[in-house]
Amino acid sequence: MTAPSAQSSGNTLVIVGVGLIGGSIALAARARNLFSRIVGLGRNPARLQEAVECGVLDTGITAVEQIPHDTSLVVVCTPVANIAADVQRIAPHLPPSAIMTDAGSTKRAICASLQDFASQRPTFVGSHPIAGSEKQGFRAGKADLFLGKRCVICPVNDHSETDIVRIENFWKSLGMDTQRMNPSRHDEILARTSHVPHVVASALAGATASSDLEWTGSGFRSTTRVAGGDPELWTGILLDNSEQVADGLAQVMNQFERFQTALANRDSDELCRLLTIAKERHQLLEHAACSSRLDQEVNLTPEDESG
Amino acid sequence: MTAPSAQSSGNTLVIVGVGLIGGSIALAARARNLFSRIVGLGRNPARLQEAVECGVLDTGITAVEQIPHDTSLVVVCTPVANIAADVQRIAPHLPPSAIMTDAGSTKRAICASLQDFASQRPTFVGSHPIAGSEKQGFRAGKADLFLGKRCVICPVNDHSETDIVRIENFWKSLGMDTQRMNPSRHDEILARTSHVPHVVASALAGATASSDLEWTGSGFRSTTRVAGGDPELWTGILLDNSEQVADGLAQVMNQFERFQTALANRDSDELCRLLTIAKERHQLLEHAACSSRLDQEVNLTPEDESG
Repeated sequence: MTAPSAQSSGNTLVIVGVGLIGGSIALAARARNLFSRIVGLGRNPARLQEAVECGVLDTGITAVEQIPHDTSLVVVCTPVANIAADVQRIAPHLPPSAIMTDAGSTKRAICASLQDFASQRPTFVGSHPIAGSEKQGFRAGKADLFLGKRCVICPVNDHSETDIVRIENFWKSLGMDTQRMNPSRHDEILARTSHVPHVVASALAGATASSDLEWTGSGFRSTTRVAGGDPELWTGILLDNSEQVADGLAQVMNQFERFQTALANRDSDELCRLLTIAKERHQLLEHAACSSRLDQEVNLTPEDESG
Repeated sequence: MTAPSAQSSGNTLVIVGVGLIGGSIALAARARNLFSRIVGLGRNPARLQEAVECGVLDTGITAVEQIPHDTSLVVVCTPVANIAADVQRIAPHLPPSAIMTDAGSTKRAICASLQDFASQRPTFVGSHPIAGSEKQGFRAGKADLFLGKRCVICPVNDHSETDIVRIENFWKSLGMDTQRMNPSRHDEILARTSHVPHVVASALAGATASSDLEWTGSGFRSTTRVAGGDPELWTGILLDNSEQVADGLAQVMNQFERFQTALANRDSDELCRLLTIAKERHQLLEHAACSSRLDQEVNLTPEDESG
């Protein structure tokens, strides 16, 4: 697979915001030798220096003026509320041949703010790699975080096919399966599959007294795992997609009420039916995960060996 | 550590219901050489034969009349709605020196039904090993399922200290940390730490359309993992503890409503506060898990080596 950046203008990757996702992108790109140089743009010089010393970055910079002239790709990995402004701030310092994308968990507002960048140079194409962890910081980053996972690409009307494919190829080169989607549709679906689950896990964790925690088992730990995510980051995501999240929460509460009614009526048939529907969804997921692991084994091993 | 069963009356362990928990107890007891013989009592001869062939059991039996005369310990691992009846059915076929316990996820009703067995021979002392998996069947069993986990023992007034200690020593010999607790208190706490989380995970899984599942990541998978549990088994648990579960659900729904209000008001401070409380609970759990792993390394390695 050819790195999307292998072109005359240069071959530097700039990562804006070197946390878990930015750090993992750097590690994954490095493991596959996709760029001649990986530069991190951030606010904290000491932390950037640490990332250089750990081999995550080649260089850390704190000002847009320091962005290298041979930059071919910029991936903005800052909190969703900052992404549009970061792209606008960075664009004037890039060569016209460079392309920009992001890793934000919401897409509607970001893509709307940046729609002018679809037809101008440098171009921005929105992305959401569906991969992550409740952990924070580049030290929790992993070169294989994206392997076999899905990345949503959100083109808008003015994007050229060439630009879309460049961004798709970048994520594919990290081992991801890409799918194009309308930004609003993305936010509608991800509200239900990611943002609402975060609220559900957090509501459960928040409703559990500290003194009860010693009586939890692996089930509670699993159900509340994502509640360990960064509260500020998630506040931004939930606010940016608040209507869709509220709709999704209402659906979960509706399901809760069915359980409550069944419990109050001691209706074992209804309880068993509700639990069976849930188990069927879980089995579909397990099946999908199993297929995805198989795909990975079949398709990606040669690349792993060469990487 | 001396096996609780090393006594003149014999040294056979009888496991009633050879599923995930029963199978794991057999594997754990065998790995530590605690009994001279491990017998499974169940309904399905073919499945019992399979468990014998897999080395989980020495013998499978389908009738209480076949219970060996040298039985020292019986662990009833059937669904919670069956446990009391199973104990009553089995007791007349045991030597008076034998002791019985269970592995049920609820304790109030079971211990109340069986309180006469506290002072008669053979004795029953209720237990709940807090360990499990969403998987089913002895083939998913693991010899280390209980290692470093907690087991609640529910003595009632008439139990002798000797009998309580025998049951405690059995679970300790599988690597568990035991704690005594009043049966009602057990059900009150476990409603919040296990039964409500099961409903929460199932409500989320049930509220998510099958067509959305391909857009889920590891977070959704983790949050809904326990929804893969056996619906009939969990129907029994939820019904047996319905009032406490309903109370716990109401607390989680209250937390949900706080999120909904904060979203409707676009109140980022409140959202961040709710998420921060959840994250703090998660950190307490992580810290506890970390300490428990350390304890395990320090205390249990010699036993592992000898096992």
